[in-house]
Amino acid sequence: MEKRARVLIDCNDAKGLVYKISKVFYDRDLNIDNNREFVDKEHGRFFMRTVVTGLFDVQELLEELKSVAPEDAHIRVIEPKAKKIILMATKESHALGDILIRHADGELDAKIECVIANHDTLESLVRRFDIPFFHIPADGLSREEHESRVMKLVNEFEFDYMVLAKYMRILTPAFVEAYDKKIINIHHSFLPAFIGANPYKQAYERGVKIIGATAHFVTNDLDEGPIIAQDVIPVNHRFEWRDMQRAGRDVEKIVLSRALALVLHDRVFVNGNKTVIF
Amino acid sequence: MEKRARVLIDCNDAKGLVYKISKVFYDRDLNIDNNREFVDKEHGRFFMRTVVTGLFDVQELLEELKSVAPEDAHIRVIEPKAKKIILMATKESHALGDILIRHADGELDAKIECVIANHDTLESLVRRFDIPFFHIPADGLSREEHESRVMKLVNEFEFDYMVLAKYMRILTPAFVEAYDKKIINIHHSFLPAFIGANPYKQAYERGVKIIGATAHFVTNDLDEGPIIAQDVIPVNHRFEWRDMQRAGRDVEKIVLSRALALVLHDRVFVNGNKTVIF
Amino acid sequence: MEKRARVLIDCNDAKGLVYKISKVFYDRDLNIDNNREFVDKEHGRFFMRTVVTGLFDVQELLEELKSVAPEDAHIRVIEPKAKKIILMATKESHALGDILIRHADGELDAKIECVIANHDTLESLVRRFDIPFFHIPADGLSREEHESRVMKLVNEFEFDYMVLAKYMRILTPAFVEAYDKKIINIHHSFLPAFIGANPYKQAYERGVKIIGATAHFVTNDLDEGPIIAQDVIPVNHRFEWRDMQRAGRDVEKIVLSRALALVLHDRVFVNGNKTVIF
Amino acid sequence: MEKRARVLIDCNDAKGLVYKISKVFYDRDLNIDNNREFVDKEHGRFFMRTVVTGLFDVQELLEELKSVAPEDAHIRVIEPKAKKIILMATKESHALGDILIRHADGELDAKIECVIANHDTLESLVRRFDIPFFHIPADGLSREEHESRVMKLVNEFEFDYMVLAKYMRILTPAFVEAYDKKIINIHHSFLPAFIGANPYKQAYERGVKIIGATAHFVTNDLDEGPIIAQDVIPVNHRFEWRDMQRAGRDVEKIVLSRALALVLHDRVFVNGNKTVIF
Repeated sequence: MEKRARVLIDCNDAKGLVYKISKVFYDRDLNIDNNREFVDKEHGRFFMRTVVTGLFDVQELLEELKSVAPEDAHIRVIEPKAKKIILMATKESHALGDILIRHADGELDAKIECVIANHDTLESLVRRFDIPFFHIPADGLSREEHESRVMKLVNEFEFDYMVLAKYMRILTPAFVEAYDKKIINIHHSFLPAFIGANPYKQAYERGVKIIGATAHFVTNDLDEGPIIAQDVIPVNHRFEWRDMQRAGRDVEKIVLSRALALVLHDRVFVNGNKTVIF
Repeated sequence: MEKRARVLIDCNDAKGLVYKISKVFYDRDLNIDNNREFVDKEHGRFFMRTVVTGLFDVQELLEELKSVAPEDAHIRVIEPKAKKIILMATKESHALGDILIRHADGELDAKIECVIANHDTLESLVRRFDIPFFHIPADGLSREEHESRVMKLVNEFEFDYMVLAKYMRILTPAFVEAYDKKIINIHHSFLPAFIGANPYKQAYERGVKIIGATAHFVTNDLDEGPIIAQDVIPVNHRFEWRDMQRAGRDVEKIVLSRALALVLHDRVFVNGNKTVIF
Repeated sequence: MEKRARVLIDCNDAKGLVYKISKVFYDRDLNIDNNREFVDKEHGRFFMRTVVTGLFDVQELLEELKSVAPEDAHIRVIEPKAKKIILMATKESHALGDILIRHADGELDAKIECVIANHDTLESLVRRFDIPFFHIPADGLSREEHESRVMKLVNEFEFDYMVLAKYMRILTPAFVEAYDKKIINIHHSFLPAFIGANPYKQAYERGVKIIGATAHFVTNDLDEGPIIAQDVIPVNHRFEWRDMQRAGRDVEKIVLSRALALVLHDRVFVNGNKTVIF
Repeated sequence: MEKRARVLIDCNDAKGLVYKISKVFYDRDLNIDNNREFVDKEHGRFFMRTVVTGLFDVQELLEELKSVAPEDAHIRVIEPKAKKIILMATKESHALGDILIRHADGELDAKIECVIANHDTLESLVRRFDIPFFHIPADGLSREEHESRVMKLVNEFEFDYMVLAKYMRILTPAFVEAYDKKIINIHHSFLPAFIGANPYKQAYERGVKIIGATAHFVTNDLDEGPIIAQDVIPVNHRFEWRDMQRAGRDVEKIVLSRALALVLHDRVFVNGNKTVIF
C-alpha cells in the first residue's frame, strides 16, 4: 500500500549528495512531494528533508540511503503520526492553555501524555481537557530531589518531546542530558537580550521599544540552546513592566506553539547551537 | 577556468526531475553551492534554482539540461554579472533616491543606464550621480504619443529590467506587452487593498491600522501583476492621510529595493499571476 | 471612599475644552492617572479619555462635565468592572478558545454570559469551561427566523458586547441595528483586501506575500465597520491556501482578543466609520 | 501675526498640572492643535507636549508657564524651524545616504551643516549633494588627539544635533559630555542584544531568527543611552553573517531616519535612561 514518509538526512557535505539521494528515490519509483536542502558552508554540513510517497519498506529505504551517504550521516525515515508530548508548567496558563486548545481542536499533530507542574494552580484547567495532571511540589526539596521525582514520573511515559510551557524552574545538567534535544522551552524575551530573571522588568528598565519571545531547545547553557522561533511586538513608554508582561504573553504562546508545530512536523534540524528549519 | 552560474529551470512537473538534473551536475563534476526547488501542485509546475561552480561551457550545460528536462522546460544558465536597468520616475524622489544611493555604493548588482521622467523635478538629483536623465514631458500629448517617445528612447538601450520608481502614469497594453515581465512597479498600498488613485487617502478614510506597499511585475491588469515583495507598517488615528503617505514612503522604497535585489539575483520566477521566490 | 473612573468624552471641538474639563477635575481635587485627547480636524471632533481617582459621586461628576461641554457631547463616567459579553461561534475553535482560556485565567476583564452557536461542534469545548452553551441550528430556517431565535435568547441576557468569534453567518440589518456598536467581529483578512467568502483562497490565488486579520465593529456594510485592530504575518509561495488559513488563525485570535481587551477597557471611540483608540 | 509653537514641559508630577497649563493657553486665547501628556508614575515625572497656535510672545508665554509649573520644570517654547545637524560617518554609505536623500528632497526638517568622517571614502557621495565634507583621519592619533580635532571643527558650527550615521569609533566621555543629549547613534543590533563589535557576526553565531537596529542618544555607557527607535526583520539559517549585515542595513537606515525625524520635531523627551515619545 502506498505510504508517505519524511526522510531527514544530516551529514558532512560531499559532492553529489543530492544526486545520490535523489537516485535512491528515483530507482524506487518514489514521488518527491517536497524537498529542501541546505549546506552550512562554515561547518561543511549538509541537511536535507524530503517528503516521499510510494511503495517502500521503511527499513529497506533507510539502509539504501545509508549505503549512499557519508558514514557519519544521521538518517531518519519517519512515517507521519502524532508524536507524544509531555507538558511542564508552573502557574501561568497562557502558553499551556494555547497548546491545550490546539490539542482539543485536533490542530496539533500530537498526543499530550500529561501535564506536570510544580504548583497545583493549573490543575482545574488541565482537567477540563481530560488530560492527566501531576502536581509535584518543590517546596522543601533540593533541586535534585524534585527533579528525581519528576524524572521518575516522566520515565513512566514514552514521549518524543517535553515542552516547558512557562515552567519557571532551572533544570540541572543531569536532567537536560537525560532528554537531549527533546526539551523545548519558551523564554520570555527576545534572546539573547535579557537573559535571566524577570526579562520584562529588565526590558522596562532599559526602555526598549520592542519586546519578544524565543522558543529554543534546552541545553546546559541557561537560555542558550538552539533557537527555533522568535517573534516581537512594539511597546512604548506607556507600558509599565506588567503591561509588557501582559503583551508579551501573546507573543510567548504564539512563538511556542509555532516552534512546537515545526518540531512535530520534523522540520527542525539541530546544527550545533543553531537550527536549520525547513 | 572555474566559473559560477545560476541554473534556472521551470517546467511541467515530472517524476525524477531532481535526480535527472542533479545527475547532469554530478556527471560534469560541478559543485552545488545552493539549490532550491518548488512544485506548484495545483498547476503541476516545477521550479528549480541551482548555483553551480566548476568547469563548464554554458551552452553545453544548457543543451545537456534540455536533453533531460521536459520539452516545455524553460531553462537558463546565467553567469552572474551586473544587469542593466532603466529607471522611470515622476516627481517623488524617495524610491528613486534609494536606488541611486545603493547603486553609488556598489550594493546593487546592476548598472543604471538612465532615468526617464515625465517631469524635470528629479533632474538635479539624478545628475548628482552622473546618471543620464531624460525628461519626456507628457503635457499636450496623448498617452500613445508620450509612450512612443519613451519607447523610442528606451529602445536605444539594452536593458534587463525597467523599474517604475513611483512613475505615476498608467501604461498602455502595447507598452506593457513590449517589455513583458521586465517592468517592476512599486504600488503604494498593500495590494489588493486600495487599488487605484491615492491609496493613502483611501486608507485614511477606511481607518485602517496598518498600511503597506507592494512591488510587482506590471501586466495589463492595473495593479494586478505577480507580486514580488510586500511590507507594512502600523498607523493609527493620529495619522492624517499625508502622514500615512510620509510613513508609507519608507515602506515603498524598502520594498522596491528588496524586490529589485531579488530580481537582479535571478531569484524570482513568474508562475502565472504569482511568483516563486528562492 | 476613594474610587476610580474612566471619563470618556466625545463632542464637537471647541476652544478650551481641555481647560474646562481639567478644571472640573481640579476643582473636585481628583487625581488624573492617565489622560489622552485627540482632535479629528477633518470633522472637528474632540475625543478625551481620562482616568481619575478620588472622592466623587459618578452622577454629580457627569452632570458637572455636561455643564462645561458642548451640548452635543457624549459623556460617560465608568467605574471599572467586568463587562458582560456574549460569544457567537460556528465550528472553528481557535478564536473562541483563546477567549475562553483568557477568561478562565482571569486575564479578561469580562464575564462570559454564554456562547451561542449555529452548530454543536464546540459544545464540549465550551462546557469544559462551565459556560452556558446554546445551539441554535439554522438548518431549514430563513435568516430572519434563525436570527429571531438568536435575538430571543440574547435578549434574556444583559450584556455590553457581543463577540463574533468566527461566527460564519451574515447578519441582517435588523439584527445589527438592534445591537449598534455592540457587536465585534473578526474578519479573516487584512481588510479591505479580500472582502467576502474564503479570503484565504483569494489571498492564495492573488499570490500575496502577507496575510492578516481585522477586528471591527459590525455595521450594515458587510466587512465595512470601524476597524479596531489589525495584524499580519508573512507567507510565501510554499503556502497552499489551507496553510494560509492555518497560519492566519493565530493572527485572527490574537487580533480579536486584542480588540476585545481595548473595548473592555473603554479605550475605543467610534468616530464615523473609524475608531479612535487610546 | 498668528504663529505656532511647540510647548514642551517636563517636571515633577503634581496635582492640577494639566489644568494650570491649559488655563494659560485658554487665558491667552491660544488654539491647541495637538496635546499629549504622560506621567511616569515610578519616578513621579510629568511630560507634556502641546502644539499651540495664536497670537503670543514666546518669552512671555514661557514666563507665564514657569509661573504655574513646579520649580524644577524644564519648559521650552519652540517655534518650528529647520534644526541644524552635523553628520558623522566612517565608510558605510547607507545611513548617511538615506539622510542626504531626504535632505535633498526637503523631507527632513533640518539643515545639514557638514559631514565629518574619519575616512575619505564617502567624500564623493557627500559632495554630490553640495554638503561640506571634512575628512579627519585618525591614523597615528590617540583617541583624544583625534577627538580634539573633531571638536575643534564641530565647534565652528552651531548645531542642534550630531548624528552618528555609522560612525564606527567609540567616543570618549569628555566628547559625549560636551554634547550631552545632542548625539544620536544608530547601533547595528536590537539592543541590548549583541552589544559591542560586529553584532551581525554575533547574531549569526547565536542563530537568531530576527535581527534589528536601535537608534539612541549617546551616553557614556557604551551602547546604553536612551533608546529612541528600534525595528527588526526576520532572518533564517540561510543567512551568513554578511547577508545579515546586508539585510540589517535597511533596518539601520530606516530606524535612524525615523529617530531623527522624531527628534527634529521635538517629539522626544529624555527620561533618565529612557525616552518618552509623543
